[in-house]
Amino acid sequence: MSEKRHLLTPGPTPVPPQVLAAIAQPVVHHRSPDFRPVYEETLARLREVFRTTGEVLLFGSAGTGAMESAVANLCSPGDRVLVVSAGQFGERWRGIASAYRADVETLEYGWGEIPAASDIAGRLQELGGAKAVFVTHSETSTGVVCDLQAIAAAAGEQGALSVIDAVSSLGAVPVESDGWSLDVVVSGSQKALMTPPGLAMVSVSERAWTTLGESPRFYFDWERTRKAQASLDAPFTPPVSLVAGLDVALGMLLDEGLNSVFDRHVRLGRACREGAKAMGLELFSPDDDRSAVVTAICAPDGIDATELVGALRDRFGITIANGHRALKGKIFRIGHIGYFDVFDVTTALAAVELVLTDLGAEIERGAAVSSALEAYEERARV
Amino acid sequence: MSEKRHLLTPGPTPVPPQVLAAIAQPVVHHRSPDFRPVYEETLARLREVFRTTGEVLLFGSAGTGAMESAVANLCSPGDRVLVVSAGQFGERWRGIASAYRADVETLEYGWGEIPAASDIAGRLQELGGAKAVFVTHSETSTGVVCDLQAIAAAAGEQGALSVIDAVSSLGAVPVESDGWSLDVVVSGSQKALMTPPGLAMVSVSERAWTTLGESPRFYFDWERTRKAQASLDAPFTPPVSLVAGLDVALGMLLDEGLNSVFDRHVRLGRACREGAKAMGLELFSPDDDRSAVVTAICAPDGIDATELVGALRDRFGITIANGHRALKGKIFRIGHIGYFDVFDVTTALAAVELVLTDLGAEIERGAAVSSALEAYEERARV
Repeated sequence: MSEKRHLLTPGPTPVPPQVLAAIAQPVVHHRSPDFRPVYEETLARLREVFRTTGEVLLFGSAGTGAMESAVANLCSPGDRVLVVSAGQFGERWRGIASAYRADVETLEYGWGEIPAASDIAGRLQELGGAKAVFVTHSETSTGVVCDLQAIAAAAGEQGALSVIDAVSSLGAVPVESDGWSLDVVVSGSQKALMTPPGLAMVSVSERAWTTLGESPRFYFDWERTRKAQASLDAPFTPPVSLVAGLDVALGMLLDEGLNSVFDRHVRLGRACREGAKAMGLELFSPDDDRSAVVTAICAPDGIDATELVGALRDRFGITIANGHRALKGKIFRIGHIGYFDVFDVTTALAAVELVLTDLGAEIERGAAVSSALEAYEERARV
Repeated sequence: MSEKRHLLTPGPTPVPPQVLAAIAQPVVHHRSPDFRPVYEETLARLREVFRTTGEVLLFGSAGTGAMESAVANLCSPGDRVLVVSAGQFGERWRGIASAYRADVETLEYGWGEIPAASDIAGRLQELGGAKAVFVTHSETSTGVVCDLQAIAAAAGEQGALSVIDAVSSLGAVPVESDGWSLDVVVSGSQKALMTPPGLAMVSVSERAWTTLGESPRFYFDWERTRKAQASLDAPFTPPVSLVAGLDVALGMLLDEGLNSVFDRHVRLGRACREGAKAMGLELFSPDDDRSAVVTAICAPDGIDATELVGALRDRFGITIANGHRALKGKIFRIGHIGYFDVFDVTTALAAVELVLTDLGAEIERGAAVSSALEAYEERARV
C-alpha cells in the first residue's frame, strides 16, 4: 500500500473521517434551505465552544485573516496598542498592527518564556494605557500556553481591550470568552476544531463593539458580518463545504463535552512530556499541565532537528514540526490537539526514539511509550 | 431516496465527484512534500487558465477578498478610480473602493445594460484620467458579459490600470490576461473552476506591480504572497483540501482544452436562451453568444419569480437564482458555468416549463427542450 500518513503537527491537524465525508457532500447553495440550517447550527455550536452568548463571526480565511480583522475593526492609525510577543505568533500580531499603522508598543519575551499578567499590568501603567493588548494564548512556536484569565484581567483593569489569538488553543484548553471578559477571541478551523484550514472565527465583546476604529476594511468588516449572520445570510459566498465539515466537528467536540476534551488534552500533553523525559530528552516547552497543545522538545546534543523531522517523514510518513526561525534545527514539536488519542502520542514517541537512536543520539530506549501511557492514565487535575 | 439536488445557479456551481473525492482526502501539512507538488501544479495550471506568464496569487477567501486585495494593494486614499457599474457586482467594486477612501467616480449603467469601451474612454477623458478602472466582466446579476478586450484597451489608452472581476467568467468565456493587457484579473474557485467556494485568485501585470499603493493590508498583501509562492511556501496555512480539489478541477478544464470549454459554454448559453424563447419567455440578459455564463429571463406577466424559484426548490430539489435587489421577483437566472452539459440546461427548462404552467402562465409547452438541444448541436462561432 502507499505509505500511511501520520499528521502530528500543531496544525493543520488530522481531520476525522466523518468530517471529511461531510466536506465531500455535493455543494449546496449558501442561500438555500440546504445550507441555512447547517450555518445556523455551526454558528450556535461556535458560541458554545467559545463559551459566549455573543455572536461569533465566521470568515472564509486562515486564522491570520481573523487576526487582521481584529486590528482592522478596532484600530485607527495612531492608536496605541500593546503587543505581547513571545514567539512566532506574537510577531504576527506586531506585523499586522504595524501594517495598520497603530502606535505599536511591544512587551517582548524570549521564545519559550511565559508572558505574565503582572508584566502586562506594569507595562500598561508605564505607557499610561493602550486601546488594546494583543496576546497569543497558545504560542505554537514554543509550546507555551499563558494564563489567559489573569492576563485579560490585567488588561481590563488598565482599561485596555484584550484581543486573544486562540487559534491553536480554542477547543483544546479552556477559553472562557464571557467568563474571563475576553474582548476579542480569534480562532481557526484547522487546529483543535478538527476541520481543514480555510475557516476562521472571532468573538467580540459588547465593550469591543462600542469602540470600533476607522481603518479601511470590507471582507473582514465585523458589522457587515454580524448583520448578515443575523439573517443567516453570509455576506459573501462562504466555503459551504468547510462549514458543513466544521458543523460535524463541533458536534463531535460538544458530544464529548468540552470539559472532557480539555481533560483529554491535559493528559495528552502530560503523556508526551513524560515520554520525552523518559527518553532522556530535555523539554523546551514548560513542563506544566497548561501546555497541552504542542510539546516542544530540544534536539539532543549533536543532533539536528531538521534531520530528525526529515527522517520521520521519509521513513515513516510521520509529520512533526521543526522549530521556527532561530529555533530551526534546535527543537522539534509534536502537536496533540484535536483528533488525537494517546496512541498518536506513543506513535510519535516511538518513531522519534527509533530515529534518534539511528542518528546516534544517546537516549534511553524502551521507556517512552510506557511512561506516556502511564501518564495518560492518571486523572487530570483540571 | 432523499431528493436528488440540481444546483443550477451561477455560483456556487456543481462540483465534479472527482473534485469532491480529492477534497475528502486526509489533510496534509502545507509545508510537507505531500502538499508542495499539489500547490506547484495548481499555481502552474492557474497561470494556464488565466493565460498569463505572470504569477497568479492564490488566497483562501471568497472572490470578494481577492477583489479587496486589488483595491488594498493598488490604491492609496484619495487616488482617483473609475468604477464601471451595471449590476450587483459593479456595486461591490464601488463599496470596496469607497471603504478604502479612494476618490471614486462611477460610470453607471442600468441593470441589464452592456458597458461600452467608448463610454469608458469618454469618461476617463472627462476626468482627466484615473489610476484604475474597475470592471465586472460577467455581471452575474444580469447575465451581461462585456467586451473585455475593448474595455481594457480603452482603459490602457487613457493610462489607467484595468482591474477585472472575472469571478464568474474565468474558465467559461475567454479571458486573455496577457494577450489583452489586463492589469489585474480576479477570480474565485466556485464558478467555472468547479471547486467549492473558499479560494480566490488574482493575476497582476508587470505594470500593476510597479504602482502599488499605500493602503494597509496584511492577509491580502500581494508582495508577501508572491514572495511566499515563489518558494512554494504559502504565507499563511492555505485551505489545503480545497487546493487539492482545485488542482483536479483545473486539470479537467485543461484536459478538455480551454477553447473547447469556451465553445461548450457558448452552446450552453445558446441552448438556454433558445429554450426560453421557445417557451415564449422574454430574455432579460442579452441574446448574444458572449452571454454564456448565466441566462436571466423575465418572469411572465402575473408571475412572481420568487414563487417560481421556491416551487422548483420545493417540488424538485432544483436551485436556480432569483433576481437581485430591484429585480427580485421580476427575473430568474439559470447558471450554466463549469461542470454543466446540455442536459442540465434541459432539466432547468423542463422544470421551469412545468412550474410556470402550474402557476397559470401562458407559455408554449413541449418546445423548450428540443429547441435547446438543437441550438446546442450547432457549431459555435467562437
